[in-house]
Amino acid sequence: MIKAGIIGATGYSGEALVRLIARHPEAGLAFVASRSEAGRPVGEAMPGLGDLPGDLVFCAADPQALAEAGADVVFLALPHGVAAGFARPLYDAGVRVIDLSADFRLGDPDVYAAYYGADHPDPELLAAAPYVLPELAAPGWESSRLIACPGCYPTSVQLPLVPLLRAGLVEPEGIVINSVSGVSGAGRKANAFFSYCERDNSVVAYGAPRHRHLSEIEEQLGAAAGREVVVQFTPHLVPMARGIATTIVARAAGSLAAAEEVLRAAYAGTPFVRVLPSGTFPDTRNVVHTNRCDLSIVHDARTGAFILTSVIDNLLKGAGGQAVQICNRLFGLPETSGLL
Amino acid sequence: MIKAGIIGATGYSGEALVRLIARHPEAGLAFVASRSEAGRPVGEAMPGLGDLPGDLVFCAADPQALAEAGADVVFLALPHGVAAGFARPLYDAGVRVIDLSADFRLGDPDVYAAYYGADHPDPELLAAAPYVLPELAAPGWESSRLIACPGCYPTSVQLPLVPLLRAGLVEPEGIVINSVSGVSGAGRKANAFFSYCERDNSVVAYGAPRHRHLSEIEEQLGAAAGREVVVQFTPHLVPMARGIATTIVARAAGSLAAAEEVLRAAYAGTPFVRVLPSGTFPDTRNVVHTNRCDLSIVHDARTGAFILTSVIDNLLKGAGGQAVQICNRLFGLPETSGLL
Amino acid sequence: MIKAGIIGATGYSGEALVRLIARHPEAGLAFVASRSEAGRPVGEAMPGLGDLPGDLVFCAADPQALAEAGADVVFLALPHGVAAGFARPLYDAGVRVIDLSADFRLGDPDVYAAYYGADHPDPELLAAAPYVLPELAAPGWESSRLIACPGCYPTSVQLPLVPLLRAGLVEPEGIVINSVSGVSGAGRKANAFFSYCERDNSVVAYGAPRHRHLSEIEEQLGAAAGREVVVQFTPHLVPMARGIATTIVARAAGSLAAAEEVLRAAYAGTPFVRVLPSGTFPDTRNVVHTNRCDLSIVHDARTGAFILTSVIDNLLKGAGGQAVQICNRLFGLPETSGLL
Amino acid sequence: MIKAGIIGATGYSGEALVRLIARHPEAGLAFVASRSEAGRPVGEAMPGLGDLPGDLVFCAADPQALAEAGADVVFLALPHGVAAGFARPLYDAGVRVIDLSADFRLGDPDVYAAYYGADHPDPELLAAAPYVLPELAAPGWESSRLIACPGCYPTSVQLPLVPLLRAGLVEPEGIVINSVSGVSGAGRKANAFFSYCERDNSVVAYGAPRHRHLSEIEEQLGAAAGREVVVQFTPHLVPMARGIATTIVARAAGSLAAAEEVLRAAYAGTPFVRVLPSGTFPDTRNVVHTNRCDLSIVHDARTGAFILTSVIDNLLKGAGGQAVQICNRLFGLPETSGLL
Repeated sequence: MIKAGIIGATGYSGEALVRLIARHPEAGLAFVASRSEAGRPVGEAMPGLGDLPGDLVFCAADPQALAEAGADVVFLALPHGVAAGFARPLYDAGVRVIDLSADFRLGDPDVYAAYYGADHPDPELLAAAPYVLPELAAPGWESSRLIACPGCYPTSVQLPLVPLLRAGLVEPEGIVINSVSGVSGAGRKANAFFSYCERDNSVVAYGAPRHRHLSEIEEQLGAAAGREVVVQFTPHLVPMARGIATTIVARAAGSLAAAEEVLRAAYAGTPFVRVLPSGTFPDTRNVVHTNRCDLSIVHDARTGAFILTSVIDNLLKGAGGQAVQICNRLFGLPETSGLL
Repeated sequence: MIKAGIIGATGYSGEALVRLIARHPEAGLAFVASRSEAGRPVGEAMPGLGDLPGDLVFCAADPQALAEAGADVVFLALPHGVAAGFARPLYDAGVRVIDLSADFRLGDPDVYAAYYGADHPDPELLAAAPYVLPELAAPGWESSRLIACPGCYPTSVQLPLVPLLRAGLVEPEGIVINSVSGVSGAGRKANAFFSYCERDNSVVAYGAPRHRHLSEIEEQLGAAAGREVVVQFTPHLVPMARGIATTIVARAAGSLAAAEEVLRAAYAGTPFVRVLPSGTFPDTRNVVHTNRCDLSIVHDARTGAFILTSVIDNLLKGAGGQAVQICNRLFGLPETSGLL
Repeated sequence: MIKAGIIGATGYSGEALVRLIARHPEAGLAFVASRSEAGRPVGEAMPGLGDLPGDLVFCAADPQALAEAGADVVFLALPHGVAAGFARPLYDAGVRVIDLSADFRLGDPDVYAAYYGADHPDPELLAAAPYVLPELAAPGWESSRLIACPGCYPTSVQLPLVPLLRAGLVEPEGIVINSVSGVSGAGRKANAFFSYCERDNSVVAYGAPRHRHLSEIEEQLGAAAGREVVVQFTPHLVPMARGIATTIVARAAGSLAAAEEVLRAAYAGTPFVRVLPSGTFPDTRNVVHTNRCDLSIVHDARTGAFILTSVIDNLLKGAGGQAVQICNRLFGLPETSGLL
Repeated sequence: MIKAGIIGATGYSGEALVRLIARHPEAGLAFVASRSEAGRPVGEAMPGLGDLPGDLVFCAADPQALAEAGADVVFLALPHGVAAGFARPLYDAGVRVIDLSADFRLGDPDVYAAYYGADHPDPELLAAAPYVLPELAAPGWESSRLIACPGCYPTSVQLPLVPLLRAGLVEPEGIVINSVSGVSGAGRKANAFFSYCERDNSVVAYGAPRHRHLSEIEEQLGAAAGREVVVQFTPHLVPMARGIATTIVARAAGSLAAAEEVLRAAYAGTPFVRVLPSGTFPDTRNVVHTNRCDLSIVHDARTGAFILTSVIDNLLKGAGGQAVQICNRLFGLPETSGLL
């Protein structure tokens, strides 16, 4: 059994992670640490976890102590800027680290500074951390000791778009991306804006034109295209707790048949990505509470564009589920272990 | 008091219309006709209208009889293809007609045939019917006897975009439009796809790349631009009953300041359109149950695009409310009468 | 035109009140005061009110200054314990006051102390303030200068139950009341418990067995029965923004026909209460965004009980709408003015 | 591996069952049969199951053929009246049967006839089928070949109430039960009443005073009390897809401490029922998508009553999950297998 620690377990992604590890057939909780709830029973602070077996109690979020706590792997479900400070002592102690924050997602520390408003906290470690979207990452990352787990919007964007960019089947210029997210994407917050009455019956754009995830999206799409990619990305909130739906418009550089073939080939044999028939559109309802991504593509002969749509659960394939998927591969377990 | 008849009052738009007319200070219900519920008390067939004063009963939807029923104006809340058959005898009898269907929205009967799969039922009458989005329509329409009321998505698209196209401040090529709609946009239907359990927690695209409203959108944007306009339009359903949010990406052909000035000038003094400060995004929550449209614009220096966002209530500013607004102007009433 | 001031307009009830007065045909806003937002434009602090005509700005909540501000009537939408301090100077200045808080609802200051945890702030004024549920209050209250507006749950309980208690058609012992409320009943709060993700898909009881509204319910039911009444009252939150549904089980002391007749007689000619046929159940959906109460009664021959069900909009018939209804009658206006 | 067949898999309970068996570590799908979708791929007819591995296709619902199809156990997720006709040939062929319908829940065929409007289809088989709520059923049922799985409302009622009735800690007279259910309780229906727009923002009672589940509730409570029990039961729909919350008022016949002790003892060591501390109320949010029941009890000294509240997921602990729990025990597997 793999011993897994989780730091920052009071947010929605952390909660999803705790649940996944608690029911994982080949992993168990080494510790659950919180900066704000140390000493408190997990089930009391988070009633949704009150059914977990045993008397799980939040331990203190002391980086050095947790590095020596005997975990095989530690998940960081912490805010950006905070995660790096925990990653360093764990990394130095030889514990494998899967970071769900933005701290190790961007290759270029200058881009980090530009989008996150502060110098990168540990550029040396950044260089050691591969960015891993498991279905798309180049082989070899499984030997890494620190992995950057992708963001939720970027996951929903890359899965449909990266194979097509790599194959040269869409033009990298002029890509327009619209995403809508359930409210849990904003985290667990005591903020009237996120109250039930304010988000009910509410659709609202935010963060445009320069949401922080844009940096990650453009860096990854650029790598796939082999050249700089600049996109228009507009996220929105919609009245649901979980789920992201992304709609991408990109100029076609090949036929629909070729594009579908590339997508099917990219995900053949993968357990979590499903390419729906063209003309069928993926629905968040079918993927929430799963680690899956459903996607499809249509072609518009009038405009010469492909329309790509994808859906994920932002807390699973967009965060905690993807982190467990990474963990499974790090430790040579079946990719789906604990995720079906 | 204006005597208003409503034909097809069992759908959501018709229900909204009945309520608006029933509480209108200067109009009253001449009749409420239904093809399926004739003879039944309105409050029994539609519990949401059960509070209306009087013993309102659905009358039969007999075109000739209704044309002679003494109404000053008749609203048609009927499916496309059906509405035209009612419009003709009313028109010939000198009754003013406000049609909420698609039958008189498109100037070109060939476009109608291409998008609606049948020849236009009355091309001669089509030529007599102006398309009226009240804030944007050219003066003079108030003397018309038959008015085509715009569709819901097209209203949300035109209000932010038409003034900028007229002023040459956005490029007419490459416009990308994403809309999300509450489920009432699909009408009142006994269809498992629209059941609560299927639409809850569900975001799904549909109708792409060639939704019927595309024809209306392109015809109107083309008129504003003075040239053909081809857009990418992708509608989606989101889990709410009412409301549309539209996000438009269009290449800037001028400064943000100029564009904001044009939008403010276009809607200065109008009671129902509000231009929010750039950087603020309109929220469906603030316009549902009203006849308003909130909109705003931001500029992205990285891509050179404007992002325009707008929100309306699809059943009011997108249907019944707009129809009453048109009626108010037809009869010289204050534009806001019965709509605040 | 009646000049109406509103103090405490940043909560949901206050917001509803501002909107009602702003569109009232025979009343207008004298001022809108806030303890937290003085000096700020109303539409900026509360985007849902951003469409109101004019440049409405919150003024300071200075009791003495507001008493001299020239209003004919002032609505207090303030927390209990705070409202009384504003009521006194207004009352002394001869301004009519409609209080939406609990401060003047209970006849007995000792009950107030027992349920609200503090001595009543102004027992003398309490004695001068009639409790007015307009459909049920004894005649003569219209000359009062200070009116206590009922709570939301108590309104939903009294409308079905009081006429039957008065007529001796239900036993006053053993009444069991279950209510469910939309989340706006908790007010506008920056509290993670009330966040969208926590209230979505959540039904949860709270405040049992001794919710504060119990005191008001029992005092009013006792007055109707002519003897002490002790009830079981269990409120719950359900995932919707607005609306209360109340289900009451009470032993029958007469026939269903007699009970229905009493209810129909009680509300004959009233504009806001509708008695549905037995076997039909009222639905919150049909009353939200209105000032109405729908109710019905069934009899269970097996248990000998009546089941009474009622629905209201907690922010309208349960708060701001009822306050305007009271105001209309205070000033001799049609009871429905501004409420249809 | 246990080979499990499912008949009637196109409803919500059936869908939940298919998913549970598909990911069960010690059971697999022998067949999935449908009366309406035979021959169609499961993932096409039910997009929410589109991710299941393999090419699952609905087979025909032929009772005799399915009895010979080699399954170890068959789940019947069929309407009442239909299930019995399938149970007989399976039973005669020696296949174990777990029936989720009402056909074998009532011990008395006359009660069945009274509540279901038809003679019981197979009284002889009825006598052979124990009613099994696993936490409460008398030992020995595991050797039965046909098991009646409890209804959703009855499960939520019995778990809090039966241990107290057995211990004589509540009075069996005058029990009042209010339940609210998510819309999936009504099944997958093409009915406008269950459409998103009609159920959104809607709370409505139904089926009172004599919902069909009343017969099952009273029979089981009577068995626990050792005497006839007549209760008041009022179910309601609330705007969520899944979940039931039940609130029970019953006169105390002992202390709160004694009652809590009885409840804790009843569920000590059981994996799916959690007794929350008195004063804490269970929340549907914490049990949806699980097989758990959370419950708690408070005492009201003013009325002498206990208030019991419980929550379950109607499709899991109230249907498919409970059926799998029963299956696990029938076959000697860990009770939680496939259910965590």
